[in-house]
Amino acid sequence: MPGVRPASPDQAALLSELVDRRLLIETGVPGVYGRGGDFEDVRERVAALVTRAAAHERPESLRFPPILPRADLERVGYLKSFPHLAGSIFAFEGTEAQAAEQYDRACRHEDWSEFQSMSELVLTPAACYPVYPAIAARGPLPPGGVTVDAGGAYVFRHEPSGDPARMQMFHQREIVRIGEPETVHGWRDVWRDRALEVLERIGLDVQLEVATDPFFGRSGRMLAASQREQQLKFEVVTQIAGPEPTAVASFNYHQEHFSSAYGLQMADGSAAHTACLGFGLERVTIALFNRHGFDVRAWPTETREELWQE
Amino acid sequence: MPGVRPASPDQAALLSELVDRRLLIETGVPGVYGRGGDFEDVRERVAALVTRAAAHERPESLRFPPILPRADLERVGYLKSFPHLAGSIFAFEGTEAQAAEQYDRACRHEDWSEFQSMSELVLTPAACYPVYPAIAARGPLPPGGVTVDAGGAYVFRHEPSGDPARMQMFHQREIVRIGEPETVHGWRDVWRDRALEVLERIGLDVQLEVATDPFFGRSGRMLAASQREQQLKFEVVTQIAGPEPTAVASFNYHQEHFSSAYGLQMADGSAAHTACLGFGLERVTIALFNRHGFDVRAWPTETREELWQE
Repeated sequence: MPGVRPASPDQAALLSELVDRRLLIETGVPGVYGRGGDFEDVRERVAALVTRAAAHERPESLRFPPILPRADLERVGYLKSFPHLAGSIFAFEGTEAQAAEQYDRACRHEDWSEFQSMSELVLTPAACYPVYPAIAARGPLPPGGVTVDAGGAYVFRHEPSGDPARMQMFHQREIVRIGEPETVHGWRDVWRDRALEVLERIGLDVQLEVATDPFFGRSGRMLAASQREQQLKFEVVTQIAGPEPTAVASFNYHQEHFSSAYGLQMADGSAAHTACLGFGLERVTIALFNRHGFDVRAWPTETREELWQE
Repeated sequence: MPGVRPASPDQAALLSELVDRRLLIETGVPGVYGRGGDFEDVRERVAALVTRAAAHERPESLRFPPILPRADLERVGYLKSFPHLAGSIFAFEGTEAQAAEQYDRACRHEDWSEFQSMSELVLTPAACYPVYPAIAARGPLPPGGVTVDAGGAYVFRHEPSGDPARMQMFHQREIVRIGEPETVHGWRDVWRDRALEVLERIGLDVQLEVATDPFFGRSGRMLAASQREQQLKFEVVTQIAGPEPTAVASFNYHQEHFSSAYGLQMADGSAAHTACLGFGLERVTIALFNRHGFDVRAWPTETREELWQE
C-alpha cells in the first residue's frame, strides 16, 4: 500500500467539519467518501452550470461507466505517464475449492490476491478516455469536427490522501473537442476564460495557471517540462486548504496524442487534434462550502441565484 | 477470462439495434457500453420516477462512489456467495524500472499483472453495501429506524454477456430500510406492490416472482433453496429478449445479515433488520425501448406523461 499523503492541519480540520456536518461520509479508506444530500445537491448544480455554459455549442451527449477496456489504457500509453495512479480490475476464475480458500482468507482479512486474475477492464482515469475510440469508430469527421459532452463521470486516481479535496474517486465534468488543430486550440482558449467567469460568478476567487500533469518518475520530469513549455495544460486554481492552491478545472490540448492512437481523421484525410476540459466537481463543491460556509441556505444571494437558477 | 455468455438471436438483434441507433455505444468488452443522449435521458427519468414514488417516506439521501473498502466486502461475506461476480482493484507500487517493464508489456498487450498489487478497494457489487457501515457508525437507531435513498449508483458484476440487458456495470436505483424486523418486512412488501404499479404506468408488462440470487457453486444451491423457502427475495420481471423474462427490480429482506456484520442496533438494544429495493435502471430503459420503439418521441402518451411529467 502506498503511503497516505498526510493532511495539513487546515485540510484535516476541513475534512473533520465536512464529516461532522454529514456533507462527506468516511468509509475507512482515505480519499473514498460518501456524500450527503446537500453536498450532492451542490455538486449536481455545479455540473448544471457547466451544462448551461456549454449549451450554445450544442455538444453531443455521451456517457460512459467508470470502467474502461484495459486495451484502451494500453493503447493510449497511460502506464508510461501515470503508472502510480492507475487502477486495474481483477476477478476470480477458480474452482469451488479455491473459492472456499479465498473466502476463508478474506474472513480473516488475510491476503487473497493469489486467487484473483487480471480482467479485461481497468478503472477510467479521465472521463474523456472512452470518447476517442467511440468517435473514431464512426469514421472521418466532418469539417468543424465534433464536441462531446461526457457528463460528470466518476474517475479513479490511486493517491490516498488526508486532504478532502484529493479523492481517489471523484466526478470529472468533461467536455471534449475533436477537429482541425486551429479549431481545437481556439476552443480550449475560449473555455479557459469562460471557466474563470463561471467560477467567479459563484463567488470563488480563482486564478489561471500554466500547469503540468503529475507524471511518474525521472522521465516524467522531462514530459512535464515539455508540456509546460508548449502550454498544453492550464488549470484554474483556488485556495481551499493546505499550503498550495488547489486545481478545480483543467484545460488540456492533446495535439495528436489521442487521434494518432485511434486514427481520428478529418474528412479530408488530415489528422484531427483533440482537447478536453474538466471541472473537478467535488473540488468545486468543497471550495464553495469552504468559502461560503457549511449551510447552503446562508450562502451569498449571487451564488445561490447562479446555482439554483432552475 | 471467463467465457462470455452468448446472446440469443433476439438479444443479439436488440443489441445491434440499440448500437445502430446510438443508444448504446460498444467499447469492445461485452457488457460494457457507453450511453447516448436519449438513453441517458430515459434512464434519468426512470430514476426520477422512483424518487417520486419514495418521496412521501422522506428518505435520507446518501450517495457513494462505485468503489468500496475491501474490508467491507470481506466483512459481509460477499466472497462466500458471489466470488465469481466480484471485482477487486489492483494498483502499481513498484520502482521506475518495473514501471518501464510494465509499460513495455502493456504496449504489446502482453500480461503486466505481476506488477499490480491488491489495493484496499473493490468495486461496489450492490448500491446498498456502503449504506450499512455509514448508518452503523452513527450508533443505535431511533424507533422506526431509517430509510436511505442511495440514488442510482454504478455497480459491478463480472459476467460478460452478449445480452444487452446483462451489463457488467450498470446503475442500481436503491432504497434501503433499516429498523425493527416487522417495520422492515412490511416496508419490503409495500414496495413490492408499488414497484409493479410504477412500472405498469410506463407501459411495461410486469410480473412479481419469488427469486433467488445467483449463488456460486454447490453450497450456493443450498443458499438459494433456503432463500426461496423463506421468500427473502422477490423480483419484478418483464420479457425483453431471450428465452426467459428479465428481472428489472428486486426486493430483498436481509434479516440480520448486514446488521450483525456492523452491529446495527435499535435504541432499545435489539438488533435491527435491513431490506433494500433496487431498480436496474438500464434494464428498465432497455425494456422501454424494446416495448415502445426506438424513437422516444413516438412513445405512447401515457408513458411519456409519466416520464416527462416535470
